[in-house]
Amino acid sequence: MPTISTKGQNMPSSPIRKLVPFAEKARAEGKKIYPLNIGQPDIETPKVALDAVKNMDLKVLEYSHSAGFESYRRKLVGYYAQHNIDITHEDIIITTGGSEALLFAMMSCLDQGDELIIPEPFYANYLGFSVAGGINVVPVTASIKNDFALPPVEDFEKLIGPKTKGIMICNPSNPTGYLYTKEELQVLRDIAIKHDLYLFADEVYREFCYDGKVHNSIMHLDGLDDNVILIDSVSKRYSECGARIGALVTKNKAVIETAMKFAQARLSPPTIAQILAEASLDVEEDYFTSVKQEYTSRRALVVNLLNDMKGVYACNPGGAFYTIAALPIDNADKFCQWMLESFDYNGETVMMAPVKGFYATEGLGENEVRIAYVLNNDELTKAMKCLAEGLKNYPGRVENANEELLTAKV
Amino acid sequence: MPTISTKGQNMPSSPIRKLVPFAEKARAEGKKIYPLNIGQPDIETPKVALDAVKNMDLKVLEYSHSAGFESYRRKLVGYYAQHNIDITHEDIIITTGGSEALLFAMMSCLDQGDELIIPEPFYANYLGFSVAGGINVVPVTASIKNDFALPPVEDFEKLIGPKTKGIMICNPSNPTGYLYTKEELQVLRDIAIKHDLYLFADEVYREFCYDGKVHNSIMHLDGLDDNVILIDSVSKRYSECGARIGALVTKNKAVIETAMKFAQARLSPPTIAQILAEASLDVEEDYFTSVKQEYTSRRALVVNLLNDMKGVYACNPGGAFYTIAALPIDNADKFCQWMLESFDYNGETVMMAPVKGFYATEGLGENEVRIAYVLNNDELTKAMKCLAEGLKNYPGRVENANEELLTAKV
Repeated sequence: MPTISTKGQNMPSSPIRKLVPFAEKARAEGKKIYPLNIGQPDIETPKVALDAVKNMDLKVLEYSHSAGFESYRRKLVGYYAQHNIDITHEDIIITTGGSEALLFAMMSCLDQGDELIIPEPFYANYLGFSVAGGINVVPVTASIKNDFALPPVEDFEKLIGPKTKGIMICNPSNPTGYLYTKEELQVLRDIAIKHDLYLFADEVYREFCYDGKVHNSIMHLDGLDDNVILIDSVSKRYSECGARIGALVTKNKAVIETAMKFAQARLSPPTIAQILAEASLDVEEDYFTSVKQEYTSRRALVVNLLNDMKGVYACNPGGAFYTIAALPIDNADKFCQWMLESFDYNGETVMMAPVKGFYATEGLGENEVRIAYVLNNDELTKAMKCLAEGLKNYPGRVENANEELLTAKV
Repeated sequence: MPTISTKGQNMPSSPIRKLVPFAEKARAEGKKIYPLNIGQPDIETPKVALDAVKNMDLKVLEYSHSAGFESYRRKLVGYYAQHNIDITHEDIIITTGGSEALLFAMMSCLDQGDELIIPEPFYANYLGFSVAGGINVVPVTASIKNDFALPPVEDFEKLIGPKTKGIMICNPSNPTGYLYTKEELQVLRDIAIKHDLYLFADEVYREFCYDGKVHNSIMHLDGLDDNVILIDSVSKRYSECGARIGALVTKNKAVIETAMKFAQARLSPPTIAQILAEASLDVEEDYFTSVKQEYTSRRALVVNLLNDMKGVYACNPGGAFYTIAALPIDNADKFCQWMLESFDYNGETVMMAPVKGFYATEGLGENEVRIAYVLNNDELTKAMKCLAEGLKNYPGRVENANEELLTAKV
């Protein structure tokens, strides 16, 4: 039997999806599960987008341009202009989800053995795509103590060496929800210029910023046109996760030309989904206002209920729709599995993502879970009640696990 | 400015798509172009498939399972059974086009520096995905003299070394149209077993076999379950190129488990396109009969008209919808560009794919073009008239370029 590649063996399993078999078993046993483990919003996909698909008038479902419909790219220029991002349609390649934008960006900019610095905890699939490209992820550790703000510049400087080719951030962040300030982005800008590094930013949650805070894009930074690569996606923006439409955006012409070769090798992004994504740009003006209101209310509910639980410390994140909570438990992997396998409260339980898999450094985030507030307030209330009961009954409860954090909070 | 990766620099441009700028210019000048350069059929997408999309009833466009809808995979089991391919739904991962199936297969089985033997000329993107994975393609040369039949076993044996991990074929072949016989597949089976190699087969043109010939699948081979990986796609089968739905099929559980990790990293294949692809399995029984009739008639027309042209040698392929023709010219790159830039016949011209880019060995296929018979007979007739006139007028015409081939034919 021929062997599996070393790369394939090293490829990490998704920490978000690895509990799925336990959830399937629990469901088969009749339990109701609140799925807070995955960023799959319950928000309805805009009607204008779905209608465009239902009304499409084509006889032959053809390939599109490898960079995506020109009409869509031209229309996106207007979208970005609304966010003070000044680009042309030639700075955009439409990709199959933000995932493919990541893949193209990494493949175009980094070789086997090159290093990419990423603040941890980070979106787990950054590691997956890095392994696929033979790229070494070098984590710089952020802390729950300050809601996972950007680590100090010295921590980056310590890690930069001859193999360092770039820094990647997610802003606002999945999994932490942290929204980087203008000053923090400026720090990254200065590091990138000083060491001639790429600066990759995943801004797929751009619209979801709370407490009146504004989103600062990596594309706003001065003098950085050749260094900055933006990763984007319609998945969360319009609740179109299943569309698989994203974008790679950069003013670096050499990167666009190189990424286009990867884009041509896979022919084109999905045609019907491009029709959907293009139509999504026509959502009514107050679409994001109402979606943001909904998420703001959910965040308040979840974060307050979490912090009301004895021994729990939860962040109050500035963006996205996640919060990380430190629980009074021994191990989040065990706890999340136990919640599915061995626990229910009136026939219900909660599925969460252990944060351990979002850290590259071994031993971090052992008692942290990521909670996605992607259900309505009624369901979230029930889910939090389940979690509270679960924590009371979990055999691996560690009463004082978060004492330091909780003391600081008080 | 940070540098482009070596991998990105080495990435080949698509030989099929690189003439696109010249075509765009010619169109802007008002020329009509017959696009025979790309496998984009004009056949209508089945109504049952498009209707399923138009009638879809979903409020939230969600991610699907990373392996694709279970309902679709289960239904595919029945499709494969009709082709005497005996698998379960757990042997299938739905991918974003055949392209992604290729990527997952290569990533799961081959590491940087590993070697993959492929009969040339081969589908150019095999090279693209190999470069992306750091894999070395080792070509074994097939010849237009015998319509690109499988090269003799000795030619394979000479190339197999410690770095060889697999052999890849396309059957029926893009770009040659060659349909491998049962005996040829048996030869490949014996080599794979002897050297413990993976055997990858791209069978996306399975339905398109002519002259009463049957398709023999790599999945029919005995004792090869752990070696065989099937690459599949709905693109050509149902004229759904823009769907971007394919499949990786193998009974090798370790490969499925590994490929699933890559699949999870990119979350899921496109949801709407899966609805389309699943519904496509409900096409009426005579769908392929009529499509095959159409292609058979086109093939006869194109191949006859080509062979009627002075100095031209064209294959009469057993499958797919391509033929390779050796033209009486100095260089197919130059000729194809000249046809777009400097020639027209009553305001019309033809776009073809130079075959040079489908060979990995330098210097082969210099005067060969691939012609996709993806237009109707009326248009193909006009296109062949254009080509004939173009050949008469081309300044780089080489009268006796194919003398050896043409003598053998007579």
